[in-house]
Amino acid sequence: MDIVSVNSLPYEDFVDVFGNVVEKCPIVAAAVWSRRPFSSLADLVASINDFIDALPESGKEGILRVHPDLAGRDLQGGTLTPESREEQGQAGLDTLTTAEVSRMARLNKEYKDHFGFPFVICARMNNKAKILQQLEKRLGNERAHERTRAIDEVKKICHLRLQGLVVPDRSNKL
Amino acid sequence: MDIVSVNSLPYEDFVDVFGNVVEKCPIVAAAVWSRRPFSSLADLVASINDFIDALPESGKEGILRVHPDLAGRDLQGGTLTPESREEQGQAGLDTLTTAEVSRMARLNKEYKDHFGFPFVICARMNNKAKILQQLEKRLGNERAHERTRAIDEVKKICHLRLQGLVVPDRSNKL
Repeated sequence: MDIVSVNSLPYEDFVDVFGNVVEKCPIVAAAVWSRRPFSSLADLVASINDFIDALPESGKEGILRVHPDLAGRDLQGGTLTPESREEQGQAGLDTLTTAEVSRMARLNKEYKDHFGFPFVICARMNNKAKILQQLEKRLGNERAHERTRAIDEVKKICHLRLQGLVVPDRSNKL
Repeated sequence: MDIVSVNSLPYEDFVDVFGNVVEKCPIVAAAVWSRRPFSSLADLVASINDFIDALPESGKEGILRVHPDLAGRDLQGGTLTPESREEQGQAGLDTLTTAEVSRMARLNKEYKDHFGFPFVICARMNNKAKILQQLEKRLGNERAHERTRAIDEVKKICHLRLQGLVVPDRSNKL
């Protein structure tokens, strides 16, 4: 879809198409529809990032808390969103050994107990080794810093999901 | 569930239980979990209302835009959330005559074209006659006023959904 088509969508279709670019937060797409017309994919990305940044800190934590654990119960139970399933699969999280699953579960729990939200990372920009490494490393961060870090990952995930839905702007091709 | 049990829930269970008190906006419950412990049901209600009020205006419009039409395609297609299905049913919206369905569809479309979000009303506090009457009347409101009016209805819906999930505070019974 090009940006002209995006701008022509009624809000219901816009939410149908973009409702999960931020995982389980259709309110985000539904809100930024107010900012049409978008001049480019980059403008749509920026509008979403601006909306996220304008949320109260509790709202940012809310975004994180509706994200699934990596290699967690939703992957094992088949209840991931299609986008998350594909991304976790690409990172190799659906073919972990029993030992790796246990280690991931232990670290995920430690992270959640410590921060009160789940570990979020852009799986498509990583692999299972890097993900485990980052999970251990980020556990040592200060809470507010880690919240910002995790929201940056939400934005990367969102950007990649949008790139799969909207063709790049012509200016980017020149 | 009493408020002590509510306060003991990990965020995942809290979002499972309260994720749809604001229709299709689990981010709201996920965000207010940060405000635990709640002293009462009233405190939980107030925390949710405060969170909604703190959203940018586009975020409030986002909440409205993820609401289904009354007696619309989701009711007819069976894709309403369980909460909405029950509420629209109680208001008699699942037994409209063909003429009433047509009138509702025409007015819903007119409302959405005018405001850029759907008509939201607490169905359980109304019936089909009152709903049609309010829909026609509110079509004449100024946009910002109507957005506030619609968000007030979201809060009423949320309050009733919460009352179905959390036992009243003892102080309210005296």
